[in-house]
Amino acid sequence: MSLMTNDTTALESDVRSYSRSWPAVFDRAKGAEMFTEDGQAYLDFFAGAGSLNYGHNNPLMKKVLLDYISDDRVVHSLDMLTTARNEFLTTFTEQILRPRGLDHRVMFPGPGGTNAVEAALKLARKITGREAIVNFTNAFHGMTLGALSVTGNSMKRGGAGIPLVHATPMPYDDYFDGDVADFMYLERLLEDAGSGLNEPAAVIVETVQGEGGINSARAEWLRTLAELCKKHGILLIVDDIQMGCGRTGGFFSFEEAGIVPDIITLSKSISGYGLPLALTLVRPEYDVFEPGEHNGTFRGFAPAFVTASESIRQYWSDDELEKSTKAKGLIIEGAFNALVAQYPDAGLISKGRGLARGLQFGEAANAGAVAKEAFNRGLLIETSGPNDEVIKLLPPLTLTEDELNRGLDIIRDSVAAVLAG
Amino acid sequence: MSLMTNDTTALESDVRSYSRSWPAVFDRAKGAEMFTEDGQAYLDFFAGAGSLNYGHNNPLMKKVLLDYISDDRVVHSLDMLTTARNEFLTTFTEQILRPRGLDHRVMFPGPGGTNAVEAALKLARKITGREAIVNFTNAFHGMTLGALSVTGNSMKRGGAGIPLVHATPMPYDDYFDGDVADFMYLERLLEDAGSGLNEPAAVIVETVQGEGGINSARAEWLRTLAELCKKHGILLIVDDIQMGCGRTGGFFSFEEAGIVPDIITLSKSISGYGLPLALTLVRPEYDVFEPGEHNGTFRGFAPAFVTASESIRQYWSDDELEKSTKAKGLIIEGAFNALVAQYPDAGLISKGRGLARGLQFGEAANAGAVAKEAFNRGLLIETSGPNDEVIKLLPPLTLTEDELNRGLDIIRDSVAAVLAG
Amino acid sequence: MSLMTNDTTALESDVRSYSRSWPAVFDRAKGAEMFTEDGQAYLDFFAGAGSLNYGHNNPLMKKVLLDYISDDRVVHSLDMLTTARNEFLTTFTEQILRPRGLDHRVMFPGPGGTNAVEAALKLARKITGREAIVNFTNAFHGMTLGALSVTGNSMKRGGAGIPLVHATPMPYDDYFDGDVADFMYLERLLEDAGSGLNEPAAVIVETVQGEGGINSARAEWLRTLAELCKKHGILLIVDDIQMGCGRTGGFFSFEEAGIVPDIITLSKSISGYGLPLALTLVRPEYDVFEPGEHNGTFRGFAPAFVTASESIRQYWSDDELEKSTKAKGLIIEGAFNALVAQYPDAGLISKGRGLARGLQFGEAANAGAVAKEAFNRGLLIETSGPNDEVIKLLPPLTLTEDELNRGLDIIRDSVAAVLAG
Amino acid sequence: MSLMTNDTTALESDVRSYSRSWPAVFDRAKGAEMFTEDGQAYLDFFAGAGSLNYGHNNPLMKKVLLDYISDDRVVHSLDMLTTARNEFLTTFTEQILRPRGLDHRVMFPGPGGTNAVEAALKLARKITGREAIVNFTNAFHGMTLGALSVTGNSMKRGGAGIPLVHATPMPYDDYFDGDVADFMYLERLLEDAGSGLNEPAAVIVETVQGEGGINSARAEWLRTLAELCKKHGILLIVDDIQMGCGRTGGFFSFEEAGIVPDIITLSKSISGYGLPLALTLVRPEYDVFEPGEHNGTFRGFAPAFVTASESIRQYWSDDELEKSTKAKGLIIEGAFNALVAQYPDAGLISKGRGLARGLQFGEAANAGAVAKEAFNRGLLIETSGPNDEVIKLLPPLTLTEDELNRGLDIIRDSVAAVLAG
Repeated sequence: MSLMTNDTTALESDVRSYSRSWPAVFDRAKGAEMFTEDGQAYLDFFAGAGSLNYGHNNPLMKKVLLDYISDDRVVHSLDMLTTARNEFLTTFTEQILRPRGLDHRVMFPGPGGTNAVEAALKLARKITGREAIVNFTNAFHGMTLGALSVTGNSMKRGGAGIPLVHATPMPYDDYFDGDVADFMYLERLLEDAGSGLNEPAAVIVETVQGEGGINSARAEWLRTLAELCKKHGILLIVDDIQMGCGRTGGFFSFEEAGIVPDIITLSKSISGYGLPLALTLVRPEYDVFEPGEHNGTFRGFAPAFVTASESIRQYWSDDELEKSTKAKGLIIEGAFNALVAQYPDAGLISKGRGLARGLQFGEAANAGAVAKEAFNRGLLIETSGPNDEVIKLLPPLTLTEDELNRGLDIIRDSVAAVLAG
Repeated sequence: MSLMTNDTTALESDVRSYSRSWPAVFDRAKGAEMFTEDGQAYLDFFAGAGSLNYGHNNPLMKKVLLDYISDDRVVHSLDMLTTARNEFLTTFTEQILRPRGLDHRVMFPGPGGTNAVEAALKLARKITGREAIVNFTNAFHGMTLGALSVTGNSMKRGGAGIPLVHATPMPYDDYFDGDVADFMYLERLLEDAGSGLNEPAAVIVETVQGEGGINSARAEWLRTLAELCKKHGILLIVDDIQMGCGRTGGFFSFEEAGIVPDIITLSKSISGYGLPLALTLVRPEYDVFEPGEHNGTFRGFAPAFVTASESIRQYWSDDELEKSTKAKGLIIEGAFNALVAQYPDAGLISKGRGLARGLQFGEAANAGAVAKEAFNRGLLIETSGPNDEVIKLLPPLTLTEDELNRGLDIIRDSVAAVLAG
Repeated sequence: MSLMTNDTTALESDVRSYSRSWPAVFDRAKGAEMFTEDGQAYLDFFAGAGSLNYGHNNPLMKKVLLDYISDDRVVHSLDMLTTARNEFLTTFTEQILRPRGLDHRVMFPGPGGTNAVEAALKLARKITGREAIVNFTNAFHGMTLGALSVTGNSMKRGGAGIPLVHATPMPYDDYFDGDVADFMYLERLLEDAGSGLNEPAAVIVETVQGEGGINSARAEWLRTLAELCKKHGILLIVDDIQMGCGRTGGFFSFEEAGIVPDIITLSKSISGYGLPLALTLVRPEYDVFEPGEHNGTFRGFAPAFVTASESIRQYWSDDELEKSTKAKGLIIEGAFNALVAQYPDAGLISKGRGLARGLQFGEAANAGAVAKEAFNRGLLIETSGPNDEVIKLLPPLTLTEDELNRGLDIIRDSVAAVLAG
Repeated sequence: MSLMTNDTTALESDVRSYSRSWPAVFDRAKGAEMFTEDGQAYLDFFAGAGSLNYGHNNPLMKKVLLDYISDDRVVHSLDMLTTARNEFLTTFTEQILRPRGLDHRVMFPGPGGTNAVEAALKLARKITGREAIVNFTNAFHGMTLGALSVTGNSMKRGGAGIPLVHATPMPYDDYFDGDVADFMYLERLLEDAGSGLNEPAAVIVETVQGEGGINSARAEWLRTLAELCKKHGILLIVDDIQMGCGRTGGFFSFEEAGIVPDIITLSKSISGYGLPLALTLVRPEYDVFEPGEHNGTFRGFAPAFVTASESIRQYWSDDELEKSTKAKGLIIEGAFNALVAQYPDAGLISKGRGLARGLQFGEAANAGAVAKEAFNRGLLIETSGPNDEVIKLLPPLTLTEDELNRGLDIIRDSVAAVLAG
């Protein structure tokens, strides 16, 4: 049974958003493509906002998922031990954490990224006995009250209906276009006993800000931040929900910088198949929650464990994916740089790292117009940034080079249509 | 690959809890039974803490789920329109909401119950411009900061690491064993301009408190509460995450009372298969969020939509399930009443409604001991209440009468072993 | 230079209040009388809202004050040691504290009552490491943010402009007209680990609520409260700002109940002459502030020390004042009881203790009307209570019996004019 | 009766501070001198932390004060109209406000500076409907909860015992030694919809930070701040409690910058005699409190009104005081500059404006040592700054040139003793 769009919009809350930008009813999807009910194909450079790094309905994970469900294996079990859970814990620890020198323990904080962030903030406060958190300009960490309080977007913050307190925003890397030394402000406030900054429990940071407009922090900036945290006894939380799972190349986006966060959040692509799953990784010395002190119903969604384990086995046993992600990223970067050169007056800026890429427009409205043109040409891309001034590309890491080029062609045409129009 | 328990406990955070009570590795499950890796069967009167009202791996929903996945239909899509989403919106509205006189719109607030509660609280604050929430003693609403602030359990509250403010707990029905008139305190505070109670945006209530110890509110108490809210311009939020989807008989647990909440939260069994899904239902006049003002990655988990729609078609087209739930509930009640009579000195109290049932022990430790004995005899039941003084039964609504009787036999034996021991 | 009223009202903020009820310009005052610029005399049963227990410009204290100023002795010195400060500390400790079995230390928290309350709350939180405060319905503790958060009046709370959090109001004595056992609600919440009440650092209470409508707590209620606090490790703060300094008979209003608060606040009449002075008294084991951790410019207002010391020497060396206060209080009580009997349909209730007396009207507006009639007849009385339904009498303790009777005559006439009118 | 120091220290809370630095019992004071009980004279360059701008027991105000008290004129009257109040309102408005182009109304928020700040913050929040306040590094605004939350000193903040929220500290003028453009950070955060800074109700600022270490803001910095506030619809609060009443030259410290704050706080020297008095000045369009929405017992301390009026008449009818303050300030500046030159390795920095002067030491402990040496030589000076690294000079504005030179001689000797020692 398939209904017309106008049948259900009256049934759903007006809070819905993507269905406004993309007025089509999608039915099937495969790899880097989505198909509407009436058979129209769209190339998907959005990939579930980074939740589908291995593409839609990846056949490798699909197989284990179908087998798992067919065999009546445990689907839902909170945090009871299951075969699938054990397998995931072992696979993730042995193939992801330990080879990267990470001795973190795995916490299942609930099914979504915001749960992982909430657990991370609670942990940091419990560990340190402090309440304050340092976050960064244009950060995005989630929509529940704790996560929202460390999120930058003022419209989303306004939704809280109460003052969002306990967090102080600090300038993200290059916030002042290089005019100010890194962490000058934060460092000074931390060292000044009269600064008025509450002593922070933790700093929470994204290595690349997706919602914030594809802003990448430099490796040296991250390293300095990690050192600053260490020096002042502040925990470092890296929110790798959108940029982890290979989005920037390595499994974790912070690998390149060579830092070891005290707490790491993962979600989105961790299941490998778009299934709800989230992790909070914590160094063993900071694993201080009492049994059950943080819990939740969907902590043990076993089908997500099996697809997650399979995705790790399939994609993280060697460095093929990492290499190809970086290579494809450079292709986009090249294409964006060409556009920057081609439209010198459009205020274009090429941004990003790996396959998290953005093209910023001097005139914010142009980004939306380009995304709309792209949709009309069969490509899904969204905008991000505080004024939606950036088109944001998060294609499946597994897309083919042909798909990548097709998408870039559409973008070029769309940019031309908007900037020439 | 299956690992021994002791292989993974060192890999996981110590926050894990159920795997402590039930030291077994579960692998398969069907209906009201779970099976460990080594083939041991357990009767499951826990049912994913109320997430598996239709049993484990219900074949009806399993079929549509396998088909959906097999056919490469859209799995993850945030809040884009999909065929599965439209189908769910229509099915849920036409077969659940409208026949019950509810004109609510459906909001997808994220995959878990706590997301539904957070969205409800944010909405209530935005609608009213007020910040305060009235909650009830022994309430449980979730683990993220907003939901946790309206939750009663002191251990879980302590996990926040910051003061949980904005909520004032009021006595739940029968909190004083009938010694105090219903809502005497709340009403007086609301009417007294000098009471010091911040004017509430909303009251949030469970009709039966599951985590709180299977405390049931009487229909007349709920009606008085609804009237009080209306009189004072306070929104009424019913958190039906654990008690909805037929747990107490009718689809919504508040139907019996004949009230119409302004905002309703659902999760746990709404997908019909244990898949992560949550809803916040809101009256159209209160649907005030801006597009995207609350969002989240896993709002559109389509496999959950198709199993949810199927569960509605299969179980809510007539009143068979409702009747059987109530009948089975009465069987448990009868068995519990017999135990109360049999052990007059044990402080036993039979509690609950429908298939949400509890047996409270005068000596709190006895509840835990009985649950342990039951596990040893092949039955999964958990404890609840502020001191874990209640054994809590949430069997699948679809369990057979034979399974029900087998479970009750085990409980009787376990109680005997503990109280006679 | 004396100006007309209408000259200055445009110069002052509209927040002014008493000058609205009493539209006259006062110039001189003596004992229980105030005189306007044009020579009109008013009997003052308001006494600076309890700040002038020894009357206006009491000649005993006036003498030492004039001498002190004339001799160029230190007027302002923050918390430097001064002769006047030492004298006060010794006099107050030796003549007030020690004879009453109180080993408290004296803290000078700033010049007004609200400073004393703020210091008390900060101390209680520092001592216990907890944040929550239990206050009572219709409490009044001050207008600064900390004190306001434990104050009941909704209009005044609204002035904060931010959510007032961290406090939970509990029913004051007789809040339910005897229908509910004392502290049933508070005790239950404290004992229930699932109640949702944050563990309190302190309870703050007035023994008689002046602003709240002259509500008196019974001695046994106060004793039970003290025991409850002790049992649960909660500090007991008695705010004796309005009811201390002999207002109810003994120097401290809690003496009658035989309790020993952990922290006591004093202000208003402590200087004996209406000069700004406030004290926070703290048991030595709780004297935990670091040097300077709480400070303020007007902590050492020496003229107030000398009048305070003199008032103690003059009025608290024997029990004359205490006896006369109680006797005069009974005269008012008798007069009020007669009015209650005389107007059986007016909903009159006689309230209070010592010389803190109230007459409550069934129709709130009648209280204001009576106060207005009294003003027209030359008597200053104000109203209090959440709806200003109580006329509140706080005459100087030193007024003559003739003055007392004259005032009561005016009240009788005013009541007659309003209720007969 | 005069007691030895050791008699009373056991009676007083350990929170006392100045009596530790200056272990002497002071008894009399005149002009710029204080005298101990045993007749030792001290030159006072502390002046009640800026509360005694016209010197101790100034004979001009002393006369009106003695007359006022002698004549039994109203001492205490809350906010009833009194002759003294009217006179003050008229004098202050006509001789201070209007000649400076200020149309503000006068609010009496309570007796101390912290009351004035609390009222200002409450007003700003009520006016704007916003909760956040921007304050500055090393700000000091008071010890009650609202004022403390906008104060920088971490030790004092710690005394709150609860998280101090709602304020975000911004760098004060020259916080980065000129390396960063003024307001770069604040402006960027205000303009960036994704910055995470809650939209501020107000900015609160001192033109010279006394407690913060005598940090002066440049006139152009203040003007830019005022423009920034105007542009963004943020109220500008100037806290002129320590720097107003002529301390920097003009009556208000912001006059030099030519700005007009929306709200101004005054206290300390406003009474002209060290009597507790505080004002919150508010532009008429922002005078939005309801009658009584903010109140307090000691709002109408009439003796302070008469000395305040007299001080205005005596010192602010011409520009003599302003000129002499600036001239004396330059003498101190010259002396400090000479010390800076004399001790090139001591990290000395000369700071301040008018007669608010500081000498900062590279080694913080040296400042304390100098203050101690000065005390031993008969001069009272305190230290300030986050690490007490600055000796702070706030002598009476009325001190003679001889007194000034004597004080500077002592400072020179003390510096020599410490730096040469």
